[in-house]
Amino acid sequence: MRIVVLAGGIGGARFLRGLKSAAPAAEITVIGNTGDDIHLFGLKVCPDLDTVMYTLGGGINEDQGWGRAGESFTVKEELAAYGVGPTWFGLGDRDFATHIVRTQMLAAGYPLSAVTEALCDRWQPGVRLLPMSDDRVETHIAVTENGERRVVHFQEYWVRLRASLDAEAVVPVGADQAKPAPGVLEALAAADVILLPPSNPVVSIGTILAVPGIREAVAGAAAPVVGLSPIVGGAPVRGMADKVLAAVGVESTAAAVARHYGADLLDGWLVDTADADAVAEVEAGGIACRAVPLMMTGTEATAAMAREALSLAEAAR
Amino acid sequence: MRIVVLAGGIGGARFLRGLKSAAPAAEITVIGNTGDDIHLFGLKVCPDLDTVMYTLGGGINEDQGWGRAGESFTVKEELAAYGVGPTWFGLGDRDFATHIVRTQMLAAGYPLSAVTEALCDRWQPGVRLLPMSDDRVETHIAVTENGERRVVHFQEYWVRLRASLDAEAVVPVGADQAKPAPGVLEALAAADVILLPPSNPVVSIGTILAVPGIREAVAGAAAPVVGLSPIVGGAPVRGMADKVLAAVGVESTAAAVARHYGADLLDGWLVDTADADAVAEVEAGGIACRAVPLMMTGTEATAAMAREALSLAEAAR
Repeated sequence: MRIVVLAGGIGGARFLRGLKSAAPAAEITVIGNTGDDIHLFGLKVCPDLDTVMYTLGGGINEDQGWGRAGESFTVKEELAAYGVGPTWFGLGDRDFATHIVRTQMLAAGYPLSAVTEALCDRWQPGVRLLPMSDDRVETHIAVTENGERRVVHFQEYWVRLRASLDAEAVVPVGADQAKPAPGVLEALAAADVILLPPSNPVVSIGTILAVPGIREAVAGAAAPVVGLSPIVGGAPVRGMADKVLAAVGVESTAAAVARHYGADLLDGWLVDTADADAVAEVEAGGIACRAVPLMMTGTEATAAMAREALSLAEAAR
Repeated sequence: MRIVVLAGGIGGARFLRGLKSAAPAAEITVIGNTGDDIHLFGLKVCPDLDTVMYTLGGGINEDQGWGRAGESFTVKEELAAYGVGPTWFGLGDRDFATHIVRTQMLAAGYPLSAVTEALCDRWQPGVRLLPMSDDRVETHIAVTENGERRVVHFQEYWVRLRASLDAEAVVPVGADQAKPAPGVLEALAAADVILLPPSNPVVSIGTILAVPGIREAVAGAAAPVVGLSPIVGGAPVRGMADKVLAAVGVESTAAAVARHYGADLLDGWLVDTADADAVAEVEAGGIACRAVPLMMTGTEATAAMAREALSLAEAAR
């Protein structure tokens, strides 16, 4: 079975761990969000790709969900001693090596997809990890800070500001000119199942779908497309998805996110048992829906979610 | 008193520490060798400039004479885990931060001289440190390894091969097209004294002099020019200078190195007391010469050497 998963960072990575456990024989291709990529200290940092790679490769800091286990922060401290920032992004020494290798390969002319494949040679994540695009896409957020309207990089909004300000607009800069990375459209066309994990519908999966050709390929694929709601009981399970949902005029409810993706895209939608009353509403919109436990409390709970998603895909086929 | 010093790495840096102690009120400008610069992992590494900066700024690893005190090697180990080399160059985590800042500033368009000044803002070396040139110069060495003639970067010759092969040629690639960095010629013209510390006469000071205009500015300066022999008793005090001296057809003796620099360049030359019998030979060549202890066993011994150099400069004025 060929499964294609559109993934953001922590939520996508943890879901993928459950999916691998639920479908060990499946051939899984991950189309990773690169809209939260950022250049820091002259280095190209791809937080979502790395979170997937480290999580599936056994190198993740399990407690925080991103970054490397057993990190030290010597380089970061030294950069601060030089007065070079930003200081709000927590790059550890082990993580720095990944960005150094990536930046060196990009400078040598390799596309991001080839670089990602080379990095995965070490990590052996057990999936084929593709960036959504080899072209530069960076999500920016419009905010009003101290009375002044500014546009900040998504990472600055998420990490420095902790999404404490309203997101007035979400702009995936460069997305309209980006092309899907090699293999992305082919994987979608050949898929038996396409899954949208409970990643952020706006700045993770929304950015992937904003690359011209990808949304069309997902919607037009022969495979059933099933998503898992990142909203449980009217609030995001993790992170601050409500802030960016509001920016695109979407309520923070499991049903509203399904409507936002649309019946042209989704064949099936899983909501949490806490949102069982949304099932009828989603199904009325033309999307098959089931209420199942959606809290990723561990690999077994997450594998059960993945099995439910595959089962709904079977039913929706 | 304005003193200009042409400096390589360890020997130059240690001499400068003695000179600062001997002449605390002097305004010291250092013209640093950049011919041993190397790009590693996509980062610009300037070993000689950094050795001067760290040594005078109190950050040097005193035992090895280069690199930072209290280093860790997490980034290097991670790069090796990615299979990315070279592994023979010992960059520590603290040191990496310096190269990351430098590379980022260079990529932003700052010349190396401005970058060096910015790095020195942190280290406060107590001297004005100028790279010999803002242009890229990299010394390469021709060797025969396993029967095959190869040209290797100087660092590969010095660090990986430990100068175990004969240097068949020494080529400062790019030197002929390089321009002196801003301030270099002005400092030489305004100097009261110009000193050549016991740095490598070929790959350190020789490379600086190979930048068109610098040798002429040193030779034509109003100030007396005094050098200190890096050869004591027929062997280099440190490093493998004999290997690269042989490549340019110079014997490893204190007198031969003075002849190599030439009477047009040098007004005075200090040899070690072990080489007292060279004094007459050097003086016969038109260069004032004295035999004094030249072992840099500590700051006081080195300060005494600096005082002897300044005294010989006074006498030669």
